Amino acid sequence: MRDIQSQPANHSVHLDKVGVRNVTYPITVMDRINRWQETVAKISMSVDLPHQFRGTHMSRFIETLNYHRGKITVRSIDDMLQQMRERFQAHCAHIEIVFPYFIEKEAPVSAERSLLEYKAAFIASNCGETDIILRVEVPVLTLCPCSKEISKYGAHNQRNDVTVQVRMNKLVWIEEIVKVVEDSASSDIFALLKRSDEKYVTERAYENPRFVEDIVREVATCLRRDRRIDWFSVLSQSHESIHKHDAFAFIEEDKRSASKKQEG
Amino acid sequence: MRDIQSQPANHSVHLDKVGVRNVTYPITVMDRINRWQETVAKISMSVDLPHQFRGTHMSRFIETLNYHRGKITVRSIDDMLQQMRERFQAHCAHIEIVFPYFIEKEAPVSAERSLLEYKAAFIASNCGETDIILRVEVPVLTLCPCSKEISKYGAHNQRNDVTVQVRMNKLVWIEEIVKVVEDSASSDIFALLKRSDEKYVTERAYENPRFVEDIVREVATCLRRDRRIDWFSVLSQSHESIHKHDAFAFIEEDKRSASKKQEG
Amino acid sequence: MRDIQSQPANHSVHLDKVGVRNVTYPITVMDRINRWQETVAKISMSVDLPHQFRGTHMSRFIETLNYHRGKITVRSIDDMLQQMRERFQAHCAHIEIVFPYFIEKEAPVSAERSLLEYKAAFIASNCGETDIILRVEVPVLTLCPCSKEISKYGAHNQRNDVTVQVRMNKLVWIEEIVKVVEDSASSDIFALLKRSDEKYVTERAYENPRFVEDIVREVATCLRRDRRIDWFSVLSQSHESIHKHDAFAFIEEDKRSASKKQEG
Amino acid sequence: MRDIQSQPANHSVHLDKVGVRNVTYPITVMDRINRWQETVAKISMSVDLPHQFRGTHMSRFIETLNYHRGKITVRSIDDMLQQMRERFQAHCAHIEIVFPYFIEKEAPVSAERSLLEYKAAFIASNCGETDIILRVEVPVLTLCPCSKEISKYGAHNQRNDVTVQVRMNKLVWIEEIVKVVEDSASSDIFALLKRSDEKYVTERAYENPRFVEDIVREVATCLRRDRRIDWFSVLSQSHESIHKHDAFAFIEEDKRSASKKQEG
Repeated sequence: MRDIQSQPANHSVHLDKVGVRNVTYPITVMDRINRWQETVAKISMSVDLPHQFRGTHMSRFIETLNYHRGKITVRSIDDMLQQMRERFQAHCAHIEIVFPYFIEKEAPVSAERSLLEYKAAFIASNCGETDIILRVEVPVLTLCPCSKEISKYGAHNQRNDVTVQVRMNKLVWIEEIVKVVEDSASSDIFALLKRSDEKYVTERAYENPRFVEDIVREVATCLRRDRRIDWFSVLSQSHESIHKHDAFAFIEEDKRSASKKQEG
Repeated sequence: MRDIQSQPANHSVHLDKVGVRNVTYPITVMDRINRWQETVAKISMSVDLPHQFRGTHMSRFIETLNYHRGKITVRSIDDMLQQMRERFQAHCAHIEIVFPYFIEKEAPVSAERSLLEYKAAFIASNCGETDIILRVEVPVLTLCPCSKEISKYGAHNQRNDVTVQVRMNKLVWIEEIVKVVEDSASSDIFALLKRSDEKYVTERAYENPRFVEDIVREVATCLRRDRRIDWFSVLSQSHESIHKHDAFAFIEEDKRSASKKQEG
Repeated sequence: MRDIQSQPANHSVHLDKVGVRNVTYPITVMDRINRWQETVAKISMSVDLPHQFRGTHMSRFIETLNYHRGKITVRSIDDMLQQMRERFQAHCAHIEIVFPYFIEKEAPVSAERSLLEYKAAFIASNCGETDIILRVEVPVLTLCPCSKEISKYGAHNQRNDVTVQVRMNKLVWIEEIVKVVEDSASSDIFALLKRSDEKYVTERAYENPRFVEDIVREVATCLRRDRRIDWFSVLSQSHESIHKHDAFAFIEEDKRSASKKQEG
Repeated sequence: MRDIQSQPANHSVHLDKVGVRNVTYPITVMDRINRWQETVAKISMSVDLPHQFRGTHMSRFIETLNYHRGKITVRSIDDMLQQMRERFQAHCAHIEIVFPYFIEKEAPVSAERSLLEYKAAFIASNCGETDIILRVEVPVLTLCPCSKEISKYGAHNQRNDVTVQVRMNKLVWIEEIVKVVEDSASSDIFALLKRSDEKYVTERAYENPRFVEDIVREVATCLRRDRRIDWFSVLSQSHESIHKHDAFAFIEEDKRSASKKQEG
């Protein structure tokens, strides 16, 4: 059978990325408390393609994934990227793994335990050396400082999804990012709250009003201080209970370049 | 060219529905205030298929749609269903049209005007006579009565999507359903609120706490009284600000059958 | 603290369902080959609420889930439903568990093994006795018989999602539903195909053209014969490669009632 | 009432973007044939926020939108960005408008007319001067060259979504991007095809096999030549009919920098 993919391309165009997307795959990720956690990921894998080749052999991406049997660590991601560069004779290899991650939380008063879901992702590339971004999406509660200030009683509050991305030079745990974000919110949230807990969360949120801007600034201030992190971005998106649209704030900061943003 | 679809089927199985789905199409719908409103719909059209025929001529659904040029009224839906039954020699015809619908609202204090989006749908069938269900999804604000009662100050509140379906014997306007739902909530919501409005909405919600159960009951009580409505369902889904999951309540009631649910 | 939920409701309206939705939870399901499989589910749980009670204690749903620690079998679903009816003093309890399920498949020629994802769900109720519907969504390939017949060469083909629901009186495995559907399609699909496999799948699909109508009829004919199944529905939805919209066919059949549809 | 937003922030962190998201709004866009087209957009608007200010007055974004009443042109986008910079005293303003856009197409043989939906977007910023990216998503049909080559008959084919982004120094019409993409595919697609058209499209696709890589290269070669375009990206994503996952190829090219990618 002729190998059509290896034929020369008609156009001398070097492609940045060629690969597969939306591969659903069961994976095992590191868990700070329980060592390992089983979950299900959406995976994307790609390489660059020089102008000499018409196409890529897409089945090799799935073979690479099968070879590693879904065990996802910083080490195995590095191995997969190396293996992809070799097998595809590529300059760059990319892999993105998005998955729900569960942490057991204790309710603040009753101490009842339940699991909360966080969306996490590893976004990794290797064009010579491996670069890994960890992304964590943390759902929290925000109570509006303006609404509290101007109203006789009450204050509108709502779900807020905070998405943090960090480029690490040393391992940062998902649990650490979660803690930074939850500490910056009006309150963290829980799958299971008894009435005593609901009272606690309601009052705590009222005592700690936060704009989307406040959350991004508090999280950014923490991440700036952490030497394991070279670059980060923070997005806080509030599903406003008084509107149908969302409010958001965003920052991106590269510590390795002289940062024009650090005016403090 | 042979007409494969008209050949006999291998299996003597009568199909309930054969048709097209996810047809995106610009439509014009009736607007109570402005007479007409332009919007974009997702449309599904189908007919039943007797066991003698192998397949349906799918292009005829799009032809029917084009023939009516996207003008959607109770009358044109009826026409389309009749036309489908005739062209396909079918016993039943079905059409479902889902679309965003905009209503201009006035902020409660500043009277600033802005548009709010509601999701609406017509779900219609004809197996002899035409049956039309109007569905309206109304976003509102709910403040938790339990959280208010047990807390020293504040109360968790959040977005709540209320979905009402009514089977009508006489025209009911989208605007009427919206009003019934908004009156049942802790507060209705707006695209544009100045600070005086935000104060008003915050305080009003605090004064009117509502469980998902309360909303469904209040809406159901209104719909029971409306003689234009033969059947209805109400779903209230609260995007709990203290959880990552939703709370919901649901009722369905057919007034034409002796209703076992009306214990009052 | 006052128990607001247990207060009498303002309106004498009995609610059909009150509960939680979109609870993401790691679960373990039975696997025909490997005994157990770890996956992540979206869960909905509810009960009916008599008119005497204003609200439900939503945290008890999560407690029920935690008590069973995510082990999902026909037996544990039955236990959960019983437990819900007792704890909530409800007449009916409902639970819906939707999850990705993986089956290892062998490529048809190279015999290379890879995992394919199927979406599965248990939809269960108990209003006296337990009723369980198993839903399985199977992605397959369909090649259009009309396009093949009228064209000099080639035929349009595409992804087709077939959704089967069965109400069982005896256990039916997910793997059995998958086999019935894959045998009815132009070809089944795979995560990993080498070139020899791709040739096989391409030619097999060309030799086995199928309309959405054909698939639904073939699957329905198989399910009719299976005595473990009392009721079923089959939906075939084809993501037409020559259109932007989908084609679909649907049947629902209750074997326990005299079926007007069995004309054969 | 105190203006909480105008208070100094606790942290000296300059935020890149603060604003609103997921605002659904009816808009009117320019149409090359019919002059104007009514559609419904998802809109995002934001500005940067210096470290001196705690928060932004979010209602002003909606006021800006209302002021322009949904008329979207290159000129009105420029006006909105200017107005946002002034009202918010911001260095940068951003606006993103995503909407379905309809083009009436003629079937290739029968000449029957029908509407096809394309997703379009304007992504615009002003940090001194206005920069506008036009994004167009074009659904096409691709037939696999490898499958055709190795198989006795047939070839797998499927829907392919091609997303083009162009940064313009002069107006480029949505219709022009659509034409470039449709000419690069195995075939363009239609909402309405009679049997003679279906034969034509099937045969044309078989005669014009295309990998995702081929499409990206052909589109990129056209866009390189167009002097109105300073920068572009092209993504081709194929919903593989023989897999459950997608194949994709991607390129991004900035003509204003010496492009290392133009090896030809």
